[in-house]
Amino acid sequence: MDDLRGTVVIERFESAALRDNPLGDPATRQVPVYLPPGYEADRERRYPVIYWLHGFTGTALRSAQESPWVPSLPRQMERAISEGAPPAILVLADGWTRFGGSQYLNSPANGRYEDSVARDLVAFVDARFRTLPLAAHRGINGKSSGGYGALVLGMRHPDVFGAVASHSGDAAFEYCYLPDFPHAQRALEKAGGVDAFLDQFLALVKKNDAIQALNVVAMAMAYSADPAAGRYRVQMPFDLYSGALREEVWARWLALDPVRLADQHREALRALRLLYFECGLRDQYNLHLGARMLHRRLEALAVPHEYQEFDDTHTDINYRYVESLARLARALAPTA
Amino acid sequence: MDDLRGTVVIERFESAALRDNPLGDPATRQVPVYLPPGYEADRERRYPVIYWLHGFTGTALRSAQESPWVPSLPRQMERAISEGAPPAILVLADGWTRFGGSQYLNSPANGRYEDSVARDLVAFVDARFRTLPLAAHRGINGKSSGGYGALVLGMRHPDVFGAVASHSGDAAFEYCYLPDFPHAQRALEKAGGVDAFLDQFLALVKKNDAIQALNVVAMAMAYSADPAAGRYRVQMPFDLYSGALREEVWARWLALDPVRLADQHREALRALRLLYFECGLRDQYNLHLGARMLHRRLEALAVPHEYQEFDDTHTDINYRYVESLARLARALAPTA
Amino acid sequence: MDDLRGTVVIERFESAALRDNPLGDPATRQVPVYLPPGYEADRERRYPVIYWLHGFTGTALRSAQESPWVPSLPRQMERAISEGAPPAILVLADGWTRFGGSQYLNSPANGRYEDSVARDLVAFVDARFRTLPLAAHRGINGKSSGGYGALVLGMRHPDVFGAVASHSGDAAFEYCYLPDFPHAQRALEKAGGVDAFLDQFLALVKKNDAIQALNVVAMAMAYSADPAAGRYRVQMPFDLYSGALREEVWARWLALDPVRLADQHREALRALRLLYFECGLRDQYNLHLGARMLHRRLEALAVPHEYQEFDDTHTDINYRYVESLARLARALAPTA
Amino acid sequence: MDDLRGTVVIERFESAALRDNPLGDPATRQVPVYLPPGYEADRERRYPVIYWLHGFTGTALRSAQESPWVPSLPRQMERAISEGAPPAILVLADGWTRFGGSQYLNSPANGRYEDSVARDLVAFVDARFRTLPLAAHRGINGKSSGGYGALVLGMRHPDVFGAVASHSGDAAFEYCYLPDFPHAQRALEKAGGVDAFLDQFLALVKKNDAIQALNVVAMAMAYSADPAAGRYRVQMPFDLYSGALREEVWARWLALDPVRLADQHREALRALRLLYFECGLRDQYNLHLGARMLHRRLEALAVPHEYQEFDDTHTDINYRYVESLARLARALAPTA
Repeated sequence: MDDLRGTVVIERFESAALRDNPLGDPATRQVPVYLPPGYEADRERRYPVIYWLHGFTGTALRSAQESPWVPSLPRQMERAISEGAPPAILVLADGWTRFGGSQYLNSPANGRYEDSVARDLVAFVDARFRTLPLAAHRGINGKSSGGYGALVLGMRHPDVFGAVASHSGDAAFEYCYLPDFPHAQRALEKAGGVDAFLDQFLALVKKNDAIQALNVVAMAMAYSADPAAGRYRVQMPFDLYSGALREEVWARWLALDPVRLADQHREALRALRLLYFECGLRDQYNLHLGARMLHRRLEALAVPHEYQEFDDTHTDINYRYVESLARLARALAPTA
Repeated sequence: MDDLRGTVVIERFESAALRDNPLGDPATRQVPVYLPPGYEADRERRYPVIYWLHGFTGTALRSAQESPWVPSLPRQMERAISEGAPPAILVLADGWTRFGGSQYLNSPANGRYEDSVARDLVAFVDARFRTLPLAAHRGINGKSSGGYGALVLGMRHPDVFGAVASHSGDAAFEYCYLPDFPHAQRALEKAGGVDAFLDQFLALVKKNDAIQALNVVAMAMAYSADPAAGRYRVQMPFDLYSGALREEVWARWLALDPVRLADQHREALRALRLLYFECGLRDQYNLHLGARMLHRRLEALAVPHEYQEFDDTHTDINYRYVESLARLARALAPTA
Repeated sequence: MDDLRGTVVIERFESAALRDNPLGDPATRQVPVYLPPGYEADRERRYPVIYWLHGFTGTALRSAQESPWVPSLPRQMERAISEGAPPAILVLADGWTRFGGSQYLNSPANGRYEDSVARDLVAFVDARFRTLPLAAHRGINGKSSGGYGALVLGMRHPDVFGAVASHSGDAAFEYCYLPDFPHAQRALEKAGGVDAFLDQFLALVKKNDAIQALNVVAMAMAYSADPAAGRYRVQMPFDLYSGALREEVWARWLALDPVRLADQHREALRALRLLYFECGLRDQYNLHLGARMLHRRLEALAVPHEYQEFDDTHTDINYRYVESLARLARALAPTA
Repeated sequence: MDDLRGTVVIERFESAALRDNPLGDPATRQVPVYLPPGYEADRERRYPVIYWLHGFTGTALRSAQESPWVPSLPRQMERAISEGAPPAILVLADGWTRFGGSQYLNSPANGRYEDSVARDLVAFVDARFRTLPLAAHRGINGKSSGGYGALVLGMRHPDVFGAVASHSGDAAFEYCYLPDFPHAQRALEKAGGVDAFLDQFLALVKKNDAIQALNVVAMAMAYSADPAAGRYRVQMPFDLYSGALREEVWARWLALDPVRLADQHREALRALRLLYFECGLRDQYNLHLGARMLHRRLEALAVPHEYQEFDDTHTDINYRYVESLARLARALAPTA
């Protein structure tokens, strides 16, 4: 990416919230930061910051990588700026765990990722870069599990983030997760239980073969952890023999569904400078239905928002990011 | 099938219950009846009867057809007998509608299929053949939607059927139907609503292309019909825009889930001479989870039953039928 | 099918050519014959005959079966007549073997199916029904392997058949068979060779699981049989360890490819009253490429023919048959 | 990768052979180079070099990237060393073109990639790093299209490379490419020809959707370029209407098939210090058959080689690389 006009620096960021996390994952993460063109030249100027949350199985570092056919996030931020959006700093946050991801929540099974991003990382970035260190000039964005994180952290931290965008974020859990429960039930039965499944996963040479089941278990780590439940502290939302929903656990999941969560955060949502979300109408995880439910819910709550649909799936939709990055940059820019 | 020792006759059966059914489907159906070896020779002897319910998109006539590699139901009945099961008459019931099937229920959208089988067909068969015309000597069996029908009609008509078997029957609706709602939502949106979808279906040259969505709509015809709802009288269990579950309609579905229905029919179930069901552990519609839930439920209700699992899918499992036919024949045989 | 205006009779046809065939398959087959409306009324009238050849894994009997959504061949013949085509008798020939099918060729591995149809069955039908017993009034038609058979028997028996139609017939063997050789190589290696594979196939409960490999072996039975090669007399066109083409065996296959065969039968082809073939442009077996190659070849040979493409696959295209049946009926009708 | 004991440096390498290449792709490429532990400490020591060729759609840079679950090539080289293999430098060569890849050949359609690697890159590396600059201490390795390149460059440049390894390399073109010709024919027909297809590809937002057809066209660029054939100088090996093989073009492809090429390079192959290749037995591109054909061919030519099979597909097999890197490092190490 030596042809960018801006600069990408890879920061080593140590998060207090992740110190001694239960999985023993590193508390220090590599965090790529894109500084817009002009950042070096004008040493007085301060910039809005957009935080980007990657999806399940991703890392911050991989969000910065690119291939000839898929422009990286820094390149897309730069393209947004070159097409007229105000300059902004783009920070690629890291929510990776050894089991694929954290949903950017605090969990006794995974670690305190919500704190890690909304508190530690924001403080680190404000200390390290010339930012405009106010919620009004901080945005949060992401795709898939990162789109989920952006919505939820945006709702719950109005003092930190003033604008939210979300691409194909997890929502409507009855359609994006429940249809995978039978597959996960089978995998857990074969492995001999949750703890055994997770141990075996760590030993797997080809981890991708187990991702579909892992995703369900990782969501349970994020949504229904229980310090008293086995070595990995996970309650599954279904009976391990019959797959029957365990209603009390499933209710904990649903309580964290953006579609349901919106009700409790009406004021925070109404105060956002921008609430933008979108989804492809052929999303394999049915996330377009979650997006539509959220759209209807926000209408009912009289929360201003911008919602878009497009004719594509969940896969290889990086080309969509320019638009949300431009919208956020405009919403977060200081008024002259 | 001219090499059978028994005989297959194709009866024309007119069902009063289906007269003037809402879809205009025929009230007269072709019903193949297998008469065991010896039926013609001994003109005094009376036989137990096993009713077989075909699956979605099937017909009674097709249940009697065979291919070189897949033995027909009459042939499997004959094989059970030749391997030692007592002789029984096998009647292939018809639950077909122009939209694929009725689940063998009475519905203001489809017609009164439950009455058609449990009342009309049984009366017709008892009048026409030398049967043992008592519940103790009548069994009901089926696969998939027919396995569902066998369970439900068996529970609800203890005065008619004394033994039940079910192969991979619909159950645990949250796993066998709900995962298809997003697909159906999309199809209904494209078509322009339920009535439009159904009209277009009738005009389709290649109907198989629409089966996945049709199945959901046909279930709604069976489980949540509403005479006030459109030309086809169907309430869908989800919002047509967002897919959000319509809880009151979905509750009507769940009330007809065998897993939930069992509670209300404990005494009838306990009185059965045989309650046998089975499912393949790789069933594409997750019906093995429904089977396991039912198994656990029946244990909790102290209902005697026989439950088997096997290592196969939902497809091409006709080879499994010999076993349930033999079990039924033994359970229904008159004691000497 | 009791609602047809014409009549379907199921004949028992014993073929001298199939007597003592190597696989021990029956020499007597059930052959459904459709007699057009009026056949019974006018006892003097004689009719043209169209022979229909079913595809791989099919039987004559199954070609006459129907489901609510897929009209049977007799029904399609009747529809062609009701829409104005001259009446004709439709005979459903049988080319089944215990390994799926014969390609309607004479083979020391399978039996003499070409003779069975072109000689024995034609003689039987002419003796049994009021036919117009001349090539000018006999047509041959089929789908898939039956479309192949119709083309090949049509080319090689100009004294028997005066008109040919073919739906999605096997052709361009490098595209319809060769891509399956790696799969077949693997299956044969696992089974322990050709003879072992075939023995195991006979014992398989779920035969459909092995069809893809079986198809390649069955084609070898038809195209490259060798009385000296193992119990089943089959030479495979590839090396069983590496898959490398065995050029001399593969050449035997290609010599029977309709695309290549046309050159040798130019005069017979030119003499046909009708040569019609068609294929869907999304045929999974790439048969549209074979059809186009044949089309170009016939143009080069100045053979009159009618060729059509349509936007569909190889599956569930029975709705296409009305057209070829109508065209044949018109081509074969006696001139007034 | 800051936890490696060795060092990865990203070199900017300008290739004279790629100057003014026909596609206008860059002549300067980023080339990651892994320097083993100790390289910095002992300033006198010289090392063998292993060149790694990436697969189709890859780049050198991406070969160095890693994800938490898939160790990068440098990490695998380091693991081989830490498990006892002699230290070696690992150079990640770049064979990318805007149409996915060059097969590392010289082509008037793509550019002179064979020269770029075997001449320019080797000279650059020998000039820039402390190498043992003799064929005896240079190895070449790769996967898929890179495995092809390693075999072919190894055969054709015995003066440059003294040892060869190849993972799941393209071979047996009748099985790895020909089955995709029908798909490519369709795509080219829809696009309106080869040049139009390639133009449209460049404009595609989601390029992955076109990869299957692109792969065939890119192979034609590598194997059957023709300066007189259209803007992109490509001859396809099949007729664009019917898919019929154009025998003279197809012969150009086959002449470059490693299975066929081996005959001409017997002496070079016999002189190698190591010839190792392997393939998974469920390779989706059937490359295990090519590997077996090559194995048999080399036996017939009395060329010493080591051949392994394993139970896996073509996908996510990076875990296999440690072994070939270790074997090469041992074969290329200077004798004490």
